[in-house]
Amino acid sequence: MTSTLYDLIQQIRPLHRVVERVVGETLRGTGVSVGMRAVLEALHALGPTTVPALATSIGVQRQYAQRMVDALVEAQLVERRANPAHRRSHHYAVTQAGIGRFADIHAREQRFLEPLLTTLTPADLATAARVLDTLSAHFHASSPEPP
Amino acid sequence: MTSTLYDLIQQIRPLHRVVERVVGETLRGTGVSVGMRAVLEALHALGPTTVPALATSIGVQRQYAQRMVDALVEAQLVERRANPAHRRSHHYAVTQAGIGRFADIHAREQRFLEPLLTTLTPADLATAARVLDTLSAHFHASSPEPP
Repeated sequence: MTSTLYDLIQQIRPLHRVVERVVGETLRGTGVSVGMRAVLEALHALGPTTVPALATSIGVQRQYAQRMVDALVEAQLVERRANPAHRRSHHYAVTQAGIGRFADIHAREQRFLEPLLTTLTPADLATAARVLDTLSAHFHASSPEPP
Repeated sequence: MTSTLYDLIQQIRPLHRVVERVVGETLRGTGVSVGMRAVLEALHALGPTTVPALATSIGVQRQYAQRMVDALVEAQLVERRANPAHRRSHHYAVTQAGIGRFADIHAREQRFLEPLLTTLTPADLATAARVLDTLSAHFHASSPEPP
């Protein structure tokens, strides 16, 4: 029977929508949009990197990543640096202010999630993560990421 | 520790993206878009209904639901009927051709999902569904669906 599996996949879209909405609401007053937040987090994890590498890493269009990076530079949360490998392709890195802002955003998100840990056990979460990984691998195998 | 939970939530967006892409690819040659498919499925489940009720049920803007319904009517997969309750608000219902087309689409999707059932047990799927339900309820409680 594929129906439970089908129902599970049907849960993804509405869950994605409400998560995006709540992430946006959690960001209210921080001067950071949902898109900027995703880029800030990725730059934080990757270290200094180019826009194309950043875009690939989070699976968005290069132009979109550039717009988000520009907005973060404007807000002084990210800075442009020389790239030792290529004179014309700059690196972008999170500033001290950016590190602080992201820590603040992340702390708000953690506070929001905490109550869930009284209902969901580590074993539940591990199983759910493994199921979603398996789904993701199956879907990706049928449709490789476009360049 | 909220980090496993956080990582799980981070899986939602990329999974949503690849699911939408594969759903789109599975629809190739059917004359039905991803948006039309969602509306066709909802009308199939709801029975004859109005556009506002349909839009609420799948959580999209009324104008968007109307555009999808119009495209389905154009493709003769859905038909407009008189609404016994309101002279000016029509009902929309799936036609025989629409039932057949949806059955065909659904069969393709089931064939695509079937191999996953060798890896994921019913218990895994039930746990994952319960975890996603719990997340969804927590996020919705903090941010009720806008009207």
